[in-house]
Amino acid sequence: MAVQLRRSHRDLSWDASTEAPRQYYTFAHPPCELVLDSGQKLGPITVAYETYGQLNAAGDNAILIAHALTGDSHVASHAPGEREGWWEPLVGTGRAFDTSRYFVVCSNVLGGCQGTTGPSSPDPKTGRPWGMRFPVITIRDMVRVQRHLLDYLGVRRLAAVAGGSMGGLQVLEWAVTYPELVEKALVFAAPGRISPQAIAYNEVMRQAIMLDPAWQGGDYQPGQGPARGLAVARMLGMITYQSCESMNRKFGRAFRGRIPTDYFSFQGQFEVESYLHYQGQKLVRRFDANSYLYLTRAMDLFDLGLGRGGYEEALKHIQARTLVVGISSDILYPAALERELVEDLRRVGVEAEYVELQSPFGHDAFLIEFEQVGAIISDFLWKG
Amino acid sequence: MAVQLRRSHRDLSWDASTEAPRQYYTFAHPPCELVLDSGQKLGPITVAYETYGQLNAAGDNAILIAHALTGDSHVASHAPGEREGWWEPLVGTGRAFDTSRYFVVCSNVLGGCQGTTGPSSPDPKTGRPWGMRFPVITIRDMVRVQRHLLDYLGVRRLAAVAGGSMGGLQVLEWAVTYPELVEKALVFAAPGRISPQAIAYNEVMRQAIMLDPAWQGGDYQPGQGPARGLAVARMLGMITYQSCESMNRKFGRAFRGRIPTDYFSFQGQFEVESYLHYQGQKLVRRFDANSYLYLTRAMDLFDLGLGRGGYEEALKHIQARTLVVGISSDILYPAALERELVEDLRRVGVEAEYVELQSPFGHDAFLIEFEQVGAIISDFLWKG
Repeated sequence: MAVQLRRSHRDLSWDASTEAPRQYYTFAHPPCELVLDSGQKLGPITVAYETYGQLNAAGDNAILIAHALTGDSHVASHAPGEREGWWEPLVGTGRAFDTSRYFVVCSNVLGGCQGTTGPSSPDPKTGRPWGMRFPVITIRDMVRVQRHLLDYLGVRRLAAVAGGSMGGLQVLEWAVTYPELVEKALVFAAPGRISPQAIAYNEVMRQAIMLDPAWQGGDYQPGQGPARGLAVARMLGMITYQSCESMNRKFGRAFRGRIPTDYFSFQGQFEVESYLHYQGQKLVRRFDANSYLYLTRAMDLFDLGLGRGGYEEALKHIQARTLVVGISSDILYPAALERELVEDLRRVGVEAEYVELQSPFGHDAFLIEFEQVGAIISDFLWKG
Repeated sequence: MAVQLRRSHRDLSWDASTEAPRQYYTFAHPPCELVLDSGQKLGPITVAYETYGQLNAAGDNAILIAHALTGDSHVASHAPGEREGWWEPLVGTGRAFDTSRYFVVCSNVLGGCQGTTGPSSPDPKTGRPWGMRFPVITIRDMVRVQRHLLDYLGVRRLAAVAGGSMGGLQVLEWAVTYPELVEKALVFAAPGRISPQAIAYNEVMRQAIMLDPAWQGGDYQPGQGPARGLAVARMLGMITYQSCESMNRKFGRAFRGRIPTDYFSFQGQFEVESYLHYQGQKLVRRFDANSYLYLTRAMDLFDLGLGRGGYEEALKHIQARTLVVGISSDILYPAALERELVEDLRRVGVEAEYVELQSPFGHDAFLIEFEQVGAIISDFLWKG
């Protein structure tokens, strides 16, 4: 996993039926480690990524797509029969992110657990997993890593950066950190700095993980991590990604079990409880608990103004044409925060637009309402 | 605590400076146990309560006030210098609940841990705490216990029943279960049945408690319970009792600790995190974890229609003039649910009114916005 594939970006064609679509790039070998926001150095860093379409000779038809908290580089499948990606209907020939026109890149974030260096990666000094000795990272650090990857791939300018939720935070960070590289910024369900309410949810999720005795201060063996704690964290996450209305529609007060026997016992479960437990268990199979701690902390720390002389000063850096999409029923990053962001952007002279996605599905709507999302993306990308 | 004070209700006068205001009534001695909704029998049951003002000769000037999840019978102080109650400015001579006119009763709920029988009480068969062997109870069971207390106190009719959140659920249950006894029902921030989203939050809180190894299946020694798990549950509860806006106002992104040293470590805390941890610790000192499990489950099970031929059929029972107060910023029991309740009540012919409390403070506004709440109560009680 940590092995650098020594192929140049000119050698990206492959047959999906015979080769895994995920590729790896390793950089920041000592003594040239990456300097993080914290001042700590980290290296070598491996980044897992997937690409779609072809980079043009000028290197300026690339679109970077950034994933959300538990997402990964698999934004779409590369060939029929392959596992579907999280924005499957939006990436491909003739789709919103048209791969006959654009070179689409999606990488797993720094601190993650899907092939990119994170707390479950081996600390080169000891050979053992970093655990909680991994440095605290920021959204800006994730973006720095993506920048290195794009340089390696030969990308000279981004036609667009796009993403939702934690992906949207990365988009904003890209537009502020590398203004000259980003032509268009497409932000779904993400504010310019994280609200105390969102920090509060994150802290409760972290506490649930650390409450599980199997967490052991982060030094668990692979496959023996705090499964129950991570599942509880995910259960809470899932509530904040949905809405009162969507849960009413989906579950109502339906009860799994016999009434009255189970109804009046702690054995019985409402459908909504059963669903949350299922989602919790499902995440445990594919996600690392320490990564969950580091990535939620990176979100808490997200504030475009940090170290830039304040929030407004930071926004002034942005040169990209920016589209911010709020979701009408979002309880995690309420639409009001995205409207506020657009007002703030306009006040400092950034060319920013606001669109509200009308949906009962809450925060996750950007992963569900493909028709609306696709239309919004297409419109924005085709605009002069 | 479990000792019955063998005083009649005609002997209620006492001197607050020399006597504890909390009183106890024990009933349902075997073989006359209370039959619960589950069909299980429970007895003896002790109920802790406090009263304010004097019952009139007709026994019809009583107001029952029902408390919320972690509240108790101490709705107000009885004398200067005494600890303030949770609706302190609203109960007393000349106040909204005017004790020169009304006899106010507030009791700790069945399943609670402030003197009324609950999972921390001794199981009479073994002498040891019930723990998770305590029967699952419902809001209706709580109301049945209150009915016994009021009979004992000589109350023949309730001029009003009032309460918010879990207290509001009890008010609705009173109006449906004993329609002939309730003249006015005053419901703050409570729906006619619990939403799947609220069940979901409750389940995450329960899982946090049960995740704590100190929980030990509920068989912990007094003072050695799952303090960390209960604190995490409370932290989540506190988020749902507030709102995005109130947290923005109160905490913003203020950070406790040194930047950058603590900012880029898991040691540092945002103010909002520090506040939640403080609230978690505070609850642990006064609340029993098993009670938290039982009371949240009682809320989940709350559905006025259960065992009554459906929701609409249940609402038809209500004879009380009913006022339902929604809170504009409530994220736990959103105002839309209370508006819906009033529409449903009117559809079946109940004399119901809706008032919306305008407040940024979220669900807890009924415990904060005393001026608005007081005016609403006074208006409603004085109405023909």
